[in-house]
Amino acid sequence: MAVSRRTGRVDDVPDLVSRARDGSPRAVARLISLVENDSPALREVAAALAPFGGHAQVVGLTGSPGVGKSTSTSVLVTTLREQGKRVGVLAVDPSSPFSGGALLGDRVRMQDHATDEGVFIRSMASRGQLGGLSAAVPQALRVLDAAACDVVLVETVGVGQAEVEIASLADTTLLVVAPGFGDGIQAAKAGIIEIADVFVVNKADRDGADQVVRDLRYMQSLGGRHSEAGSWRAPIVRTVAARSEGVDDVVAAIEKHRSWMDEHGELDRRRQVRAAAEIEAIALGTVRRKFGHVHGSAALDEAAARVVAGDADPYSAADELVASL
Amino acid sequence: MAVSRRTGRVDDVPDLVSRARDGSPRAVARLISLVENDSPALREVAAALAPFGGHAQVVGLTGSPGVGKSTSTSVLVTTLREQGKRVGVLAVDPSSPFSGGALLGDRVRMQDHATDEGVFIRSMASRGQLGGLSAAVPQALRVLDAAACDVVLVETVGVGQAEVEIASLADTTLLVVAPGFGDGIQAAKAGIIEIADVFVVNKADRDGADQVVRDLRYMQSLGGRHSEAGSWRAPIVRTVAARSEGVDDVVAAIEKHRSWMDEHGELDRRRQVRAAAEIEAIALGTVRRKFGHVHGSAALDEAAARVVAGDADPYSAADELVASL
Repeated sequence: MAVSRRTGRVDDVPDLVSRARDGSPRAVARLISLVENDSPALREVAAALAPFGGHAQVVGLTGSPGVGKSTSTSVLVTTLREQGKRVGVLAVDPSSPFSGGALLGDRVRMQDHATDEGVFIRSMASRGQLGGLSAAVPQALRVLDAAACDVVLVETVGVGQAEVEIASLADTTLLVVAPGFGDGIQAAKAGIIEIADVFVVNKADRDGADQVVRDLRYMQSLGGRHSEAGSWRAPIVRTVAARSEGVDDVVAAIEKHRSWMDEHGELDRRRQVRAAAEIEAIALGTVRRKFGHVHGSAALDEAAARVVAGDADPYSAADELVASL
Repeated sequence: MAVSRRTGRVDDVPDLVSRARDGSPRAVARLISLVENDSPALREVAAALAPFGGHAQVVGLTGSPGVGKSTSTSVLVTTLREQGKRVGVLAVDPSSPFSGGALLGDRVRMQDHATDEGVFIRSMASRGQLGGLSAAVPQALRVLDAAACDVVLVETVGVGQAEVEIASLADTTLLVVAPGFGDGIQAAKAGIIEIADVFVVNKADRDGADQVVRDLRYMQSLGGRHSEAGSWRAPIVRTVAARSEGVDDVVAAIEKHRSWMDEHGELDRRRQVRAAAEIEAIALGTVRRKFGHVHGSAALDEAAARVVAGDADPYSAADELVASL
């Protein structure tokens, strides 16, 4: 049982988890709200979810605004649903101050799926206090995973750093590009090329699509790390998402990547790295709060004042802070 | 005395600091290298610099690529030198894997100042391990401050998050915009509008400059926080940096902002916040290294494996990690 700080509402966490596993959209929505708002129930929810993780393949979609990520996500959902799979969608917009929203059909492009009980859709805002993605994103993924989703699509509206962060949360990362967006250079700068497991060239009926494919091939050839035997070479798939063309090929590429990861122990390796990063971020958050609270609440402020006055350097001040833990 | 790990070179840190204060470009360059490479001498350098900080006004220049930041920086240096001021320039390029470079004249636009002993110029690359700006940037600022610079200009080549980070290191933040760059909307998204202390509308002889000024005024009016009595309202200065037009006005605005900060205790407040963030970042780095080393080097990895296996949730794993410190 968990009592909401804000509403006084009482949640029966084990019951919520049980209903989420049975496919209740309301239970899934409530659990995501609980992890998203850093509620007192957060730890109880996390503990209750732990035994039910690891089934879903988390697929991240990255790419510049305008290349058709939302449309691609929507048609991917349709295709996955036709295969009878349970699907979660997490749309993360780091530039938006708004979070939450209805679980179903809260985005225009997703209206097609609003009445489908096998699809969970959630928008999340939000950057965390340290400037990175909100810590709630991995927890929301854990909720969707525990809710027996076969695939969870994570779409980010952001650019640059946010995309790299999203990729670090995914088992499989799709880089969506399109002719006319200069993605090649931008993507290379952001280090996204190295991170992509599947390249999706959307709007492939437009002029310049062949050039985009050639650019991607060229940049891949520069990487070199995919040349070893047994390594994964990111396939390049052409789509016209607005007409659902090529989407089957994308789904096939996602499945092929999953099989390859299973065979090569890569899935476990990625999840291990991800879990370590998640634990560390939570632990550092705890330590950070402690810094604010050792010796009353003023230890850090006092240290900063000494540095400003020239009475201490930041390294010795930091050492004292850590020693005071 | 400090021995370089890489070269075996022996540095006499107090002597270096003393020569840097006397204006030796070689000593300044060496000290920045010492703090930049996380050398064994880093802490000794930080301690030696501590008493000599606080004189320089750190001025950050942000803005989209192409608006004329480098040119603006260069003509600002010229004007400040004409006033007899000692000037430091730190050009930070978060997307570049390269760092270092010659202290003087390492950038084409800066050639004019290459033979001027009253100007220290340094390029720094580099994002830190946690994705944020390298921890070396604030330390390099401390070197230039201790070297008796009156003004240190920090220019970033990056966009988005990097700009917000640069602003957090500055006493005074200049947002450079220009007609035709769509800066208005971009800047608003990145939260830069709220952070700017001076708006510089460069290329003000071009069509659209009036509209840029109107857009900035409008966005300022939306903010509201500057409406209180005694608060700072960021002035909008028009320049044609390539012809050195309007640069005196920028320097005047920078000085005015400094005076206003002095009068209202804002300079101390900003430096206090900055020092606290710097200490905390260093302390968290220390804690992070400890996480890797408690119980051998495997504590975090073991915790992650338990989370992947569903035997623990990330919060309880994080609690154990913190408890083991």
